[in-house]
Amino acid sequence: MENFVFYNPVKILFGKGQIANIAAEIPAEAKILITYGGGSIKTNGVYDQVKAALAGRNVFEFGGIEPNPHLETLLKAVELIRKESIDFILAVGGGSVVDGTKFIAAAVPFKGDPWDILAKGAPVTAAVPFGAVLTLPATGSEMNTGSVVTKWETQEKLFFTSPLVFPRFSVLDPETTYSLPPRQISNGIVDAYTHVMEQYLTYPANAPLQDRLAESILKTLIEEGPKTLANPQDYDARANLVWSATLALNGLIGAGVPQDWTTHMIGHELTALHGLDHAQTLAVVLPSTLSIKRDRKWQKLLQYGERVWGIVEGDEEERVNLAIAKTRNFFESVGVRTRLSDYGVGLDTIPVIIDRFEKRGFVALGEHKDVNPQTVEQILTLSA
Amino acid sequence: MENFVFYNPVKILFGKGQIANIAAEIPAEAKILITYGGGSIKTNGVYDQVKAALAGRNVFEFGGIEPNPHLETLLKAVELIRKESIDFILAVGGGSVVDGTKFIAAAVPFKGDPWDILAKGAPVTAAVPFGAVLTLPATGSEMNTGSVVTKWETQEKLFFTSPLVFPRFSVLDPETTYSLPPRQISNGIVDAYTHVMEQYLTYPANAPLQDRLAESILKTLIEEGPKTLANPQDYDARANLVWSATLALNGLIGAGVPQDWTTHMIGHELTALHGLDHAQTLAVVLPSTLSIKRDRKWQKLLQYGERVWGIVEGDEEERVNLAIAKTRNFFESVGVRTRLSDYGVGLDTIPVIIDRFEKRGFVALGEHKDVNPQTVEQILTLSA
Repeated sequence: MENFVFYNPVKILFGKGQIANIAAEIPAEAKILITYGGGSIKTNGVYDQVKAALAGRNVFEFGGIEPNPHLETLLKAVELIRKESIDFILAVGGGSVVDGTKFIAAAVPFKGDPWDILAKGAPVTAAVPFGAVLTLPATGSEMNTGSVVTKWETQEKLFFTSPLVFPRFSVLDPETTYSLPPRQISNGIVDAYTHVMEQYLTYPANAPLQDRLAESILKTLIEEGPKTLANPQDYDARANLVWSATLALNGLIGAGVPQDWTTHMIGHELTALHGLDHAQTLAVVLPSTLSIKRDRKWQKLLQYGERVWGIVEGDEEERVNLAIAKTRNFFESVGVRTRLSDYGVGLDTIPVIIDRFEKRGFVALGEHKDVNPQTVEQILTLSA
Repeated sequence: MENFVFYNPVKILFGKGQIANIAAEIPAEAKILITYGGGSIKTNGVYDQVKAALAGRNVFEFGGIEPNPHLETLLKAVELIRKESIDFILAVGGGSVVDGTKFIAAAVPFKGDPWDILAKGAPVTAAVPFGAVLTLPATGSEMNTGSVVTKWETQEKLFFTSPLVFPRFSVLDPETTYSLPPRQISNGIVDAYTHVMEQYLTYPANAPLQDRLAESILKTLIEEGPKTLANPQDYDARANLVWSATLALNGLIGAGVPQDWTTHMIGHELTALHGLDHAQTLAVVLPSTLSIKRDRKWQKLLQYGERVWGIVEGDEEERVNLAIAKTRNFFESVGVRTRLSDYGVGLDTIPVIIDRFEKRGFVALGEHKDVNPQTVEQILTLSA
């Protein structure tokens, strides 16, 4: 096992009716800004629950945060917070609203151009405190410090992280997710699954507990994902998806083990260039990454096949092939297509993506830092 | 799944050499009190590492905290802290030192008799901040808010919990545990195993992820426990035990599911009256509790048997019996005996224990609140 530091102070309020308890989590005199997205919270009852919970409090609003939140939009919220001296932000929405709010929180006290936090890794030294009411199980952003923001002008999708942007609390009420369209639930299943795979499907590191925790989440997603798609108002199935998605990326399963993240890095480019949903890019790239890097992931592919998919027959190569095929089939079975061609993306995107990586100074990816531009080309070619 | 609140802000510094990093976790101007136990830290190098890490800092010491820490001892530390205006405590030792330090931390600012925190559930409204350097994997105290203290005068062993007594940080360096006697490692395995069972072996609650996380820890203890006993300096085996013991009782696996704790409540009495090690009491009581409450734990006993022990043959009763027998055999196999008679305790202890429960106002135990004095008698009789 590798040395690690694990720290996650996010308070999770999980279950039916928990939105009613948020007032106690926000300082009494705070000027509060509610951030949200396209307005679905106003039709599904979540907005009303939040307003009721904050009755009598000093509340401002900022809506319109897009999927893959845009820098240009978020900077307007930064301006509003500075102007109104807001003390606390409440993100109400899915991963994009939470990610966007993390950036807003860090940008408000930032000296200089806040884009530097993403583009140049400029250090975050302060942030406005915030909480979250999560309405879409997928990204894990509600219990971690990561944020991905897109600069619309240049179609760049970049990442930052800072311990200062942990949510103070996150409400996870599965009932608030009942009204989501099936596509977003399908995406959430694939997103959570891939988060686990990025931290698990590397090489053996003498960390059997972390392996089993990761396999626990994968097996639960395989079992509960189809259930919650078939019966969106089955409370337990939805609750199990929500909690799985949160634990998939809260630091626990990745503590003390190698991590990959190749699939995410390539996927971000596909979203930035072609507008694919984040999860769609993962469904396209992950099976190819596993296949191209199979030699270095061999032992874990065998373990994954056996423990997660029950694959015990055949020689090692057959088992590895089947484990990868099962992964692809699972994504397809929950309704997320796994080929670039399914989204009308041609192989002419490959040199563009590699060029973008190289312009930012290509840093080799993967648990062995051996994924170079040529490997990216192989992965994307196999994703055709 | 039941509603829950999960909050655990303890920063874990895990791995080789992490003691060197504690100075950064303690406020620079703090007057620090190091609390410890019988002095083994002075012979195994841990004390020297701590002192080196805190070189130049204002450090006081308080040693002599016993296993099953005594109120009478802890109150002397309270006095010292008040007299010297100590700002920060650093617990260096096993679960007893950490538990004792939690009580000290809460008792210092407490108005009135601090024993009321345990005996009367008096609310804790403030606590001295503290961190921990854990030297014995077992109790999970390093990442939770629970504390058990014994009043020597009356042989009462009682429990309190408060979110104010989370350690600010805990160092878990597996190498610091190499010099422990085998009996303490054996005890740690049984303690961690039983912590999981108290949160897992109840009834199905539509929480498959929590079930699998619990089973992950059990399987890892079954696999790594014997390894670390056989090769105390196998770093990975020891690291896996340490991390398993911490995650066994940090709130995660118990979030959203019913919990039992019958075994612990009965076990505490056996320690208080007869001086058995905590883990010895658990090894004696758990198999009997599972057996006596089998009807209400039936489905989970079958699941546990199949998933943890691979028991798939025989009728349900045979499988349940085998699952319980496997549990007992595992405890015996790691060197902890499972019968009252192994410790020279006779059945005449039963009325004494029940009388003690009743004098404190017997509160029915177990996940169904149906463990009454008669059930306790049955459990202890079966433990003969």
